Amino acid sequence: MGDLRSKFIEVYSVLKAELLNDPAFEFNDTSRQWVERMLDYNVPGGKLNRGLSVVDSYKLLKEGKELTEEEIFLASALGWCIEWLQAYFLVLDDIMDGSHTRRGQPCWFRLPQIGMIAANDGIVLRNHICRILKNHFRGKPYYVDLLDLFNEVEFQTASGQMIDLITTIEGEKDLSKYSLPLHRRIVQFKTSYYSFYLPVACALLMAGENLENHIDVKNILDDYLDCFGAPEVIGKVGTDIEDFKCSWLVVKALECCNEEQKKLLYENYGKADPACVAKVKELYNALDLQGVFTQFESESYEKLIKSIEAHPSKAVQAVLKSFLGKIYKRQK
Amino acid sequence: MGDLRSKFIEVYSVLKAELLNDPAFEFNDTSRQWVERMLDYNVPGGKLNRGLSVVDSYKLLKEGKELTEEEIFLASALGWCIEWLQAYFLVLDDIMDGSHTRRGQPCWFRLPQIGMIAANDGIVLRNHICRILKNHFRGKPYYVDLLDLFNEVEFQTASGQMIDLITTIEGEKDLSKYSLPLHRRIVQFKTSYYSFYLPVACALLMAGENLENHIDVKNILDDYLDCFGAPEVIGKVGTDIEDFKCSWLVVKALECCNEEQKKLLYENYGKADPACVAKVKELYNALDLQGVFTQFESESYEKLIKSIEAHPSKAVQAVLKSFLGKIYKRQK
Repeated sequence: MGDLRSKFIEVYSVLKAELLNDPAFEFNDTSRQWVERMLDYNVPGGKLNRGLSVVDSYKLLKEGKELTEEEIFLASALGWCIEWLQAYFLVLDDIMDGSHTRRGQPCWFRLPQIGMIAANDGIVLRNHICRILKNHFRGKPYYVDLLDLFNEVEFQTASGQMIDLITTIEGEKDLSKYSLPLHRRIVQFKTSYYSFYLPVACALLMAGENLENHIDVKNILDDYLDCFGAPEVIGKVGTDIEDFKCSWLVVKALECCNEEQKKLLYENYGKADPACVAKVKELYNALDLQGVFTQFESESYEKLIKSIEAHPSKAVQAVLKSFLGKIYKRQK
Repeated sequence: MGDLRSKFIEVYSVLKAELLNDPAFEFNDTSRQWVERMLDYNVPGGKLNRGLSVVDSYKLLKEGKELTEEEIFLASALGWCIEWLQAYFLVLDDIMDGSHTRRGQPCWFRLPQIGMIAANDGIVLRNHICRILKNHFRGKPYYVDLLDLFNEVEFQTASGQMIDLITTIEGEKDLSKYSLPLHRRIVQFKTSYYSFYLPVACALLMAGENLENHIDVKNILDDYLDCFGAPEVIGKVGTDIEDFKCSWLVVKALECCNEEQKKLLYENYGKADPACVAKVKELYNALDLQGVFTQFESESYEKLIKSIEAHPSKAVQAVLKSFLGKIYKRQK
């Protein structure tokens, strides 16, 4: 996989060069430099797990056959489309959440002279996906399926972000509305489809598969969030407590706590005061939520392995296991 | 056209009902109500010129043949996709420009409890277009061309918005960079493609045409902005002067003015002080820019009529003339 990774990273430069010379727009130096800087700042800085998974999955679907240079390029290009999609979501999410840092550097919109132009940059990132797909897949029999797939997954992600945002609206803070099913619905739509289903679905399409025959794969991948969906290790919950987020930790706490502890949660959750935040974290520790999660995660993992092994295709099993291995016990 | 207009408006309710029950997302009452309110606030409140033009153009392309109910519905649905696209751009533009009102009411993001959630609502609007297209056009031979068309036009619009935004960045205010070609490039990408080309292109695709055979139509429609692109009547320039916008008025003023007047422009353009704004407006009046524009607009109109009459197809001529009639001498 080391070789595929370095090839994957090379493809970024090729795609970027194409986008900076896209004949559908008349670039001048200023706008070309703007886009290049924006791409370099926002697209390649993650762990690239989602993108690399497309190449990895496609290779496994080909059951050991050597991939041609073109196949590696195309699978990498699809992988980069997912990284571009992720960058688009993150740039806009950071604006919406008023975040300060991302991947260890200031959020794009926090940089001098960027500000709200970042919202349009997000849109540009989203549009780049279609340009990449058109440049490299327009003639493929699965081109229209790729467009439908990216469109549907983007719609589901935006819908998940919507329920996340409207659930936490200032002034209507009401913990009694929070539950495990609501948390799960948010994570499933906001994170799961584009993080887990999309990379595998891209590989399946490239391998000539019809996605309608792979509903079971989609269902299995939906549950991957149980091995990934609550990596809010108690020490690094970000600002979920202050922001009144419907996190796994708070809904689990509500489920396990006694009346007195519930009162403490109601009184302290969603407050900016560090003393309140500390009380909530203390309660999480008292309830040993870290242990509860580790237990839940490991049971989910076992269940998933069983579902995967029940799948009729060995190649698909290999894809699903390889992907699960990438995310289990890792942090976002 | 009165009948087509009322049918067009009915189609909005049908499309909305479908989107509020989209099986790709699990709505609950809160999220359904959110989307419905957001749509009603942002989508149908404009003049609907762009959307209605699809139906009108399609009817003219059919050269008088009675349209079936299905044809009226489909042409209307495409028209609404353009209105959805417009709503998406406006919701996000208002955030980026920090605007206060839109179509005589507060901007969506200015409403209580909306704020930055509006950015995601914009994304949802954009995603609705793909849902509408998939619901009603998935089986049509021109489905993939529709997706490509909307994608390309959106990319061009976002690119135009980008040069508009980076041209006016705070701190790099430099009037010497402003020119008629730059102004034209901004308007062409940011407004012209989705306002003029997109409605006609939708009608052409529905009528079974290949857009590659209609480059001349695209070129003619590109120039429609000269009959529309500078309706900044001096009394209602919005905040273009304060915002240091690369408007038709300022670039034309730079072109016609003497050294003394140029000095005045450099000293007063882009300042929030009402006294500075008043001086710029006074200069616009002294240069009779209103008269210059009316003259330019009427010459552009005559030239366009000549280009249209040189087109080989009478049906296409009728489409282009009808559309030009809708926008000439009108306000945005």
